Amino acid sequence: MDVDAKAFLERWHKVVATRDAAGLEALLADDMTMGAPPYWTKLETKPVVQRLLGIIISTIDDFTYHREWIDGRELALEFTGRVGDLKLQGIDLITLNDDGKIQNLDVMIRPMNGLAKLAGIVREKMMAAA
Amino acid sequence: MDVDAKAFLERWHKVVATRDAAGLEALLADDMTMGAPPYWTKLETKPVVQRLLGIIISTIDDFTYHREWIDGRELALEFTGRVGDLKLQGIDLITLNDDGKIQNLDVMIRPMNGLAKLAGIVREKMMAAA
Repeated sequence: MDVDAKAFLERWHKVVATRDAAGLEALLADDMTMGAPPYWTKLETKPVVQRLLGIIISTIDDFTYHREWIDGRELALEFTGRVGDLKLQGIDLITLNDDGKIQNLDVMIRPMNGLAKLAGIVREKMMAAA
Repeated sequence: MDVDAKAFLERWHKVVATRDAAGLEALLADDMTMGAPPYWTKLETKPVVQRLLGIIISTIDDFTYHREWIDGRELALEFTGRVGDLKLQGIDLITLNDDGKIQNLDVMIRPMNGLAKLAGIVREKMMAAA
């Protein structure tokens, strides 16, 4: 089935820019998985991933997308940002399902010091929100 | 100027698979830069990057490419591998110059424990070879 990746991307950018939690939920498949930067094991279930994504987006300052690649329902989105005084460069690798929602999202971030700082803050917020 | 990214990719895969140092050198621009996974500051000069890439490729076991995206002279190449018993997933973001050689290469890797182990081994080898 053909999936409109560009339509997805337009909605994704809007949701990220406005930090729209309800809009974000509408873009995630119920059985989605996420390969988060710190861990190998995939995170599962939409509520967990949604909460994590919300926290990540609100923790990274100056979050900006740059190069974007689309190949069918596979997307690669480069971003930069900042955690305190540490700069970050990262990539979202996204697979869309038949409904044009995120089936899997893998996120990689460099450099190590920024990633470690981000992971620490996000972990604290996840536990505080649990 | 139009650059043949697919021809580059064919040569790149061959060089990586055979760990061909001379072939690798021919694919790097003299003034190339590299954003390595552990550091924010870009590495510079071809000899430094070439040595580092050679060490990385020979340190990651089961190095395998998966999804690939090409947009003009901008490429994103997903890979997986292993350092000891720690699995890795990573991405090469490549910009080609007018001659179809690598102008910039940014590499991001997850998860953190695998990246830290890889970075430690590579650093030791770089210093031993210096």
